[in-house]
Amino acid sequence: MAGFGHWKEQRLARADGSRKGSVDELIAGIVELLNGQDGFCTTSSCSGRLLLVQALSRDSSGFEVQKQNCSWLMVTHQACATEDVVTALQEATDDAVFKFEPFILHVQCRELKDAQLLHSVAIGSGFRNSGITVSTKGKIMMAVRSTHCLEVPLSQRGKLMVTEDYINFLVQIANRKMEENKKRIDRFYSCLQLALKTEDCLSNSSLERKPKTRPVDVYRRKRKRNKKGDCISPEKNKGELETTNDPETNLDFFTELS
Amino acid sequence: MAGFGHWKEQRLARADGSRKGSVDELIAGIVELLNGQDGFCTTSSCSGRLLLVQALSRDSSGFEVQKQNCSWLMVTHQACATEDVVTALQEATDDAVFKFEPFILHVQCRELKDAQLLHSVAIGSGFRNSGITVSTKGKIMMAVRSTHCLEVPLSQRGKLMVTEDYINFLVQIANRKMEENKKRIDRFYSCLQLALKTEDCLSNSSLERKPKTRPVDVYRRKRKRNKKGDCISPEKNKGELETTNDPETNLDFFTELS
Repeated sequence: MAGFGHWKEQRLARADGSRKGSVDELIAGIVELLNGQDGFCTTSSCSGRLLLVQALSRDSSGFEVQKQNCSWLMVTHQACATEDVVTALQEATDDAVFKFEPFILHVQCRELKDAQLLHSVAIGSGFRNSGITVSTKGKIMMAVRSTHCLEVPLSQRGKLMVTEDYINFLVQIANRKMEENKKRIDRFYSCLQLALKTEDCLSNSSLERKPKTRPVDVYRRKRKRNKKGDCISPEKNKGELETTNDPETNLDFFTELS
Repeated sequence: MAGFGHWKEQRLARADGSRKGSVDELIAGIVELLNGQDGFCTTSSCSGRLLLVQALSRDSSGFEVQKQNCSWLMVTHQACATEDVVTALQEATDDAVFKFEPFILHVQCRELKDAQLLHSVAIGSGFRNSGITVSTKGKIMMAVRSTHCLEVPLSQRGKLMVTEDYINFLVQIANRKMEENKKRIDRFYSCLQLALKTEDCLSNSSLERKPKTRPVDVYRRKRKRNKKGDCISPEKNKGELETTNDPETNLDFFTELS
């Protein structure tokens, strides 16, 4: 895409526009690795978080309005404790919802083949809701996304609807999801390094390359052979949307299109 | 893509491979409309559902194993009643989780422009996790997906962790999400009809077309002008991942790449 390099330079020179003001530590390596490559420029990211949000659900007349306004009662990018949630819930005056949101990353790509490589890495690492967008003007974005989530209503109009025992149970589950999320991030980072290294080797190789050998194909063959280690081969397409053996396999056929 | 028509013919002649064995009634119109177009072939779909799943979390020695095996205690593609969930929970012997899963649709597309049109319709209808996949062999898939969800653990090793009051509260929320999901499906259907009609008009027009006028651009301009009616203009990019005013706007910038 013409002008990608120039756009990227300007983009990376801008101040971080997120509420936090900086890239999450857990994914700083990934962001740095991608931005060091000609073909990629990250545009937004979050390593994953646990949050308690409160949505304003009714207006003063008592009628339900669209939930356009939320406030955050708690947010953390690490494991949390039951007391954190209990304390935050004491501030709730409306409908409070506890959420786990996994790693998400948006990357603008120079060419479609860059997006395809990144997409392959994302799917192979367990981020099975990842997808590419190509705008009509040729801008190519890859979003790394997961189906992994929790969304649990806890209070109604400020009234707590669960016990502290339940909150403790929920927090344990949420912390396990954060741990699994971290493992997937580590897997993503390793797979990304392997994929980029493979691409480099092919680009630099002085041997004659088969016309249809693309870096992402070589990377995929290497990944499938690598039974142990960091990169996981996607499971075979079961052909059904409705299997819940592993919610992430619902979209497996995406990975097996070739 | 060469051979797309032939592949599509074979695909549509196959028996429905889903557990249910047929397309959900709520989305039969969408599926029929898409399959009637040269550029699309649906491969899997679900109109949205409420389910209670049970994951086997521990082996006989008491050690936690990977949650590879789930069983369904309840599933419905319509609103459910509190008693349905309570009754199903009585069968739980392990960790039961209540889920709302929104509309999902996978469509293989003949060309990238077809995927882009469908992607634009999906994003404009509120399905903001939608994305394109392009395999190295040129297969193009568009997945219509939403961030809209519920995932609520209810029992631990068969022991119910919430009250019936809570289940009633949860069911009301879930049914509202199903209702919102249905509205988005209707919006998607209307937007899709408009987009395809626009494309048809442009294809059939005998007037000289501006070189860069593409059906998806015209559709987008029409959609933005249409302040009332079925298609909603995407909100402007706020530039932040961390706004939760409307979780669906987190990915708005995808729509405003052009």
